[in-house]
Amino acid sequence: MRGRPKAAPGTGSEKGMARIVMKFGGTSVADLDRIHNVARHVKREVEAGHEVAVVVSAMSGKTNELVGWVQGMPKATGADTPFYDAREYDAIVASGEQVTSGLLAIALQSMGINARSWQGWQIPIRTDSTHGAARIMEIEGAEIIRRMGEGQVAVVAGFQGIGPDNRIATLGRGGSDTSAVALAAALKADRCDIYTDVDGVYTTDPRIEPKARRLKKVAFEEMLEMASLGSKVLQVRSVELAMVFKVRTFVRSSFEDPDAPGMGDFDNPPGTLICDEEEVVEQEVVTGIAFAKDEAQISLRRLADRPGVSAAIFGPLAEAHINVDMIVQNISEDGSRTDMTFTVPTGDLDKALAVLGREKENVGFDVIQSEAGLVKVSVIGIGMRSHAGVAAQAFAALAGKGINIKAITTSEIKISILIDGAYGELAVRTLHSAYGLDKK
Amino acid sequence: MRGRPKAAPGTGSEKGMARIVMKFGGTSVADLDRIHNVARHVKREVEAGHEVAVVVSAMSGKTNELVGWVQGMPKATGADTPFYDAREYDAIVASGEQVTSGLLAIALQSMGINARSWQGWQIPIRTDSTHGAARIMEIEGAEIIRRMGEGQVAVVAGFQGIGPDNRIATLGRGGSDTSAVALAAALKADRCDIYTDVDGVYTTDPRIEPKARRLKKVAFEEMLEMASLGSKVLQVRSVELAMVFKVRTFVRSSFEDPDAPGMGDFDNPPGTLICDEEEVVEQEVVTGIAFAKDEAQISLRRLADRPGVSAAIFGPLAEAHINVDMIVQNISEDGSRTDMTFTVPTGDLDKALAVLGREKENVGFDVIQSEAGLVKVSVIGIGMRSHAGVAAQAFAALAGKGINIKAITTSEIKISILIDGAYGELAVRTLHSAYGLDKK
Repeated sequence: MRGRPKAAPGTGSEKGMARIVMKFGGTSVADLDRIHNVARHVKREVEAGHEVAVVVSAMSGKTNELVGWVQGMPKATGADTPFYDAREYDAIVASGEQVTSGLLAIALQSMGINARSWQGWQIPIRTDSTHGAARIMEIEGAEIIRRMGEGQVAVVAGFQGIGPDNRIATLGRGGSDTSAVALAAALKADRCDIYTDVDGVYTTDPRIEPKARRLKKVAFEEMLEMASLGSKVLQVRSVELAMVFKVRTFVRSSFEDPDAPGMGDFDNPPGTLICDEEEVVEQEVVTGIAFAKDEAQISLRRLADRPGVSAAIFGPLAEAHINVDMIVQNISEDGSRTDMTFTVPTGDLDKALAVLGREKENVGFDVIQSEAGLVKVSVIGIGMRSHAGVAAQAFAALAGKGINIKAITTSEIKISILIDGAYGELAVRTLHSAYGLDKK
Repeated sequence: MRGRPKAAPGTGSEKGMARIVMKFGGTSVADLDRIHNVARHVKREVEAGHEVAVVVSAMSGKTNELVGWVQGMPKATGADTPFYDAREYDAIVASGEQVTSGLLAIALQSMGINARSWQGWQIPIRTDSTHGAARIMEIEGAEIIRRMGEGQVAVVAGFQGIGPDNRIATLGRGGSDTSAVALAAALKADRCDIYTDVDGVYTTDPRIEPKARRLKKVAFEEMLEMASLGSKVLQVRSVELAMVFKVRTFVRSSFEDPDAPGMGDFDNPPGTLICDEEEVVEQEVVTGIAFAKDEAQISLRRLADRPGVSAAIFGPLAEAHINVDMIVQNISEDGSRTDMTFTVPTGDLDKALAVLGREKENVGFDVIQSEAGLVKVSVIGIGMRSHAGVAAQAFAALAGKGINIKAITTSEIKISILIDGAYGELAVRTLHSAYGLDKK
């Protein structure tokens, strides 16, 4: 297993050769030992003959330390909150990934692997001008592709690029997933492996339902719903990008022994493949059950049923940076008054009620009601597009356990149900079983 | 003292306006409070109507942490010492100054001062390709000059530039002094203020001689000797640059109250001015007494007095990275055999003796003698070029205290004397008094 990059044993020099982007998050590079372990994962793929680019996050805790310094700066005269220039924030915070990229390059070199670090501005990874939450516009991949062809591993600092102002721009928290998928698209990689502290995507959270199974394949659309619904495995934007550019993305664990059997299996590595719907051959009707805690419900009673009433409610909430999730509005009985129900994070409930109280005259509702401590359980599956009765099955299963449903919203591939928080885990297990997810 | 940059009160809008580079070292930016204090020093100069660029080091301890990570990397297979690629070392270590530059820019902005950070690659500060100990080749100052004209303060990450390979290159430890002086030259600044943890350059170390006086002015050549001789106030290379480009450089304290009386006095600030010889109007014969501890002496007896013998001695020592300081060789009595004496740091003595032992045949000496725990005391002054008897005065003063001289070397503006370590402090005080340095 030592020596220069070479083709996999027993194959021709070209056969089985692929181009892979590997991404490692903060816990995977938390200290020098873990960085060394990451280098062993990279070495395995290099020695199998693949061309490899690696994307790294900051060492666990480093980004928080840097952000803490920015936020610890004295307040500007007359300001309520610490002031900061997002361009300076970016220059400061991006240094975390810069350090990891250099350290991993050194670790790889010490194993005899040709490697070099790349900062976002060196490649360059061009972003828009939204410092602190920039979007990647373009990646110039030609030089990295050329060097990969010569056997050099590119170690890329994640989470960052360079803005139109020639200054460092960061992609927002968790942005290294996005860096990896965008790089994979730019390099026309065969695969983007997201190494993390879990070993794949499960039918539901195994801490709630021990019978949860790891999924072999999940369609992009399903993963997008799961990511939006509180599954922390992948950043939402990275899944969007993967879907648009059809980047086959593997979610797998960095904590397993890099040289354990099967870890280097190109066609069938351990983990979950996020891929195009067509590639998910044995499509189940339901793929997984997602779960979001600490939801609060607000109901506005006897609203004037007139154009602009929704804007009058949700505009002020958005300005107060309150993230509204489920929205349910029934058709009014007589065309004049209606009820509106929506959910916000429990932590934002008091703020939301205060905002709505100030807007009462303007919105024109009669009574406001609220309830905290709810959970949202969601049933996700691309197969439900072509199957009737999927929702009815959920309602029947929950009714069978005496669980009352407070609100329902649906999309083409998802049913979300709001229930009392006390029944959250029971509901997850009930639905997991109802759709046969705990059977292989 | 608040508000937008403006001219000093009572002066015309142009009168008294100057361009200043201010440099702050690691202890001056050690934490958020100290960075805030640095911002107040900058604010004072901005409000006096000056154009200001600031150069910052990494927060005290940060560079050591980063270097520690590089050195903590596992060794390469078969290597004795941790391996590292100097280009990766640079990417990692330069992140310390990057962070400080962003934090100081934010601190200035929070005081209502227009400021932005600049990384070496953004200006750019172009260096040669010697990663880890690069030399500055060129600084493109036009854009910073333009922005200073619009009232913007440039906060520049010290210690770094960009190499011909388009990668970050660092200047070696203490390189931020060099960054500051080079930037001052590129910006055609009127002055370069080096803020540090001492308040100027003294006639000798005040911890040894309490009567030591702060010097108002020191000539570049003198400062160069002092810097080389162990005075830690300024990096040697920064003094060389200041001398070549005639950058008037002030050494002053960052720990004083930024708004104390006289701190903003443009013509006569508290501290020591390092300047051209011609500007040092009341030139003393002797300016200061420098002092270097932990010297060891090695004498090679009855060397063959033939061409190439010096190279045979000092070549192998240089290859072993042993820094040889004083070298004394007498003319041989009969033209065949001579003695050679030189000094090395006491910590390198054993290594030096081992190297010379291996080279005995090749060099061709008879006996090797050594002594550790010596000190070198140096008398420095540009005035001694035009004054006879300066050396004799030192020898007489030391003889008067019964201090034996082991070796002597001289340059145009310096006399260095090697003595027993036990007499080091007495010798400093004796010479300080002999040249009248303790009298105002």
